[in-house]
Amino acid sequence: HLHDRAAAQESVFARMSRLAAQRGAVNLGQGFPSAPPPAFLLDAARGALGRADQYAPPAGLPALRDALGADLGVDGADVTVTCGATEALHLVALALLGPGDEALMLEPVFDVYLPQVALAGARGVTVPMTLDPARGWQFDLGALAAAVTPRTRALLLNSPFNPTGTVFTDEELAGIVALARRHDLWIVSDEVYDELYFGARPTPLRTLAPERTFTVGSAGKRLEATGWRVGWIAAPPGLTPGVLGLRQITSFCAPAPLQAAVAAALPVARAAGFYEELRQGYAGRMQRLAAGLRELGAAVFEPRGTYFLTALHPSWTAETLVQEAGVAVIPGEAFYAQQAAPAGLTRWAFCKSDAEIDLALTRLRAS
Amino acid sequence: HLHDRAAAQESVFARMSRLAAQRGAVNLGQGFPSAPPPAFLLDAARGALGRADQYAPPAGLPALRDALGADLGVDGADVTVTCGATEALHLVALALLGPGDEALMLEPVFDVYLPQVALAGARGVTVPMTLDPARGWQFDLGALAAAVTPRTRALLLNSPFNPTGTVFTDEELAGIVALARRHDLWIVSDEVYDELYFGARPTPLRTLAPERTFTVGSAGKRLEATGWRVGWIAAPPGLTPGVLGLRQITSFCAPAPLQAAVAAALPVARAAGFYEELRQGYAGRMQRLAAGLRELGAAVFEPRGTYFLTALHPSWTAETLVQEAGVAVIPGEAFYAQQAAPAGLTRWAFCKSDAEIDLALTRLRAS
Ligand SMILES: CSCCC(=O)C(=O)O
Ligand SMILES: CSCCC(=O)C(=O)O
Repeated sequence: HLHDRAAAQESVFARMSRLAAQRGAVNLGQGFPSAPPPAFLLDAARGALGRADQYAPPAGLPALRDALGADLGVDGADVTVTCGATEALHLVALALLGPGDEALMLEPVFDVYLPQVALAGARGVTVPMTLDPARGWQFDLGALAAAVTPRTRALLLNSPFNPTGTVFTDEELAGIVALARRHDLWIVSDEVYDELYFGARPTPLRTLAPERTFTVGSAGKRLEATGWRVGWIAAPPGLTPGVLGLRQITSFCAPAPLQAAVAAALPVARAAGFYEELRQGYAGRMQRLAAGLRELGAAVFEPRGTYFLTALHPSWTAETLVQEAGVAVIPGEAFYAQQAAPAGLTRWAFCKSDAEIDLALTRLRAS
Repeated sequence: HLHDRAAAQESVFARMSRLAAQRGAVNLGQGFPSAPPPAFLLDAARGALGRADQYAPPAGLPALRDALGADLGVDGADVTVTCGATEALHLVALALLGPGDEALMLEPVFDVYLPQVALAGARGVTVPMTLDPARGWQFDLGALAAAVTPRTRALLLNSPFNPTGTVFTDEELAGIVALARRHDLWIVSDEVYDELYFGARPTPLRTLAPERTFTVGSAGKRLEATGWRVGWIAAPPGLTPGVLGLRQITSFCAPAPLQAAVAAALPVARAAGFYEELRQGYAGRMQRLAAGLRELGAAVFEPRGTYFLTALHPSWTAETLVQEAGVAVIPGEAFYAQQAAPAGLTRWAFCKSDAEIDLALTRLRAS
């Protein structure tokens, strides 16, 4: 037998994409765009092939570390390039947590956080975000503070927050930072949706608590290339060598030609206003989907960031939607491990084309 | 402080490549080719960009699993695509080993095996290969058998073997398999150099013990694209779901466009005789380097596989060679953790151009 930790549980995101393909369903489940990545990124990758095909340093190509340093406002020496944000989170858990430690996070919770913390030998403890049908998702700093114990080592946050779409306010962030300082906790801030927001620009936690914040990011979400596996960690000054000691044994380095392409693309994306364009496009598709779902009787919670919205509808389940209506979404329960999921909760990705969104709505109306 | 396991030790391969670049040294250290990948691979990648840029399934693109199944003679359903062989080895250690378990391996030992086993909570135990100046590297099945304890769960082998160049004979493999069956041990067979051999074709261990062998492989070594991070695990029938449960939390999936390119390239490489050509080229460069090193007074141990040779010279150390002669190699000690390294042992990569090899020899003669 395999070791106990090798439990055969399929990723809910992979599973819904698989069912969508098998059933010919419109895939509003897993969070990847229908559009290809921008031409400036693809061209950079075509140019890197044949030139940057061999091992990169474990920390990342120097050009990418520098580009990320400039983009994030940190020193490139504090950046570690990873095989996507998933590996970044795996590494940070290994670097910070061990047996006897607890990591606090909010629930609903992205599916890999708890198993990654467990793999590091530690215990993940969740604190509920509550869903008020009138006011939407509510964050309770007091509940987070009350969950801190002498074993708590880290707060693991996600802002913008998948699946709730929450962007923490500066006041909330200040409270989180004060809590972390009071108890000397690490902050792990999963900011893969950092450029995908619909109101005020989210404040990166590292700017408020640079001494204790590990920021996780990804080219996949920013540059619409989720399959490229170029993610990163921006660590507090001086802590990157310890991360690298682990990083070289988890996968040695991230894909070199794609790293080279992202290095070239990051300043272009910034200068060309690519992220503004992305946000505008997503905002329109969010409204299109939200309006359609409301017409169908759902309560829709519009996100302030990410490319997901959440909805409540008493008779919708992800299973029946994919099997009967031909529309794949993510069941609310996928984000619940320690708390009870709100009844009738589903998550809808709107990083898809207008045509896909319209087809999904047509199918839902007909079903 | 970071967790104890986050020790800041730089990869010896990354370190020697860094020193080589800083010093302008010829880099015969880290095992990556000077040549770019073949045109049929690069063209396939250029074609995949813009078409296969979003998440692949955690197990890998179906086309790549099928191509690997056909190439390796296994069922594609037993294949998991990973971010390089390093991640494959990390995953297999996590899937098979836990606290209280021991994994047996030979020493000299590739640098990631012991820390990966330790990260899984288990203990790595090495058994020496001995270096006989007249007969070269000697494998002792009796010593391996004697090291088995009730806690031993796995044998971790590498054939062709980096750094010794050993290719186990069919008799040795039969003895290893009998030992594994007698004690019900898993076999982890790191076969990243499976197509790089200079005598008889190495027998894959999975063909002798399919029920217990996890084969690890990599497109990086076969297709001269070490920075692409497309590796794989071929698991015994039925065990892949347990591996996938872990795989989705270590990095979710491998780079999708590069997976698509490797899927297209594998049958082309086979049909076009690419690996024969590769072997011929490497065999010539091995002879060129071996002859030059012998002229300089070294005892050279020609490999039967891999693209490395080992040499003994009483006055050569990797530190002085890179700093004074301008030639980067890997110190023998990098492969020793539990045994003493033979004095004067160095490892030389010959996956480099004739011009680089000649320049290295010229510099060594002058120094
Ligand atoms: C890594 S698969 C999950 C993708 C994603 O971010 C989501 O759908 O929530
Ligand atoms: C993953 S870096 C090491 C490359 C290699 O296989 C070697 O040089 O031994």
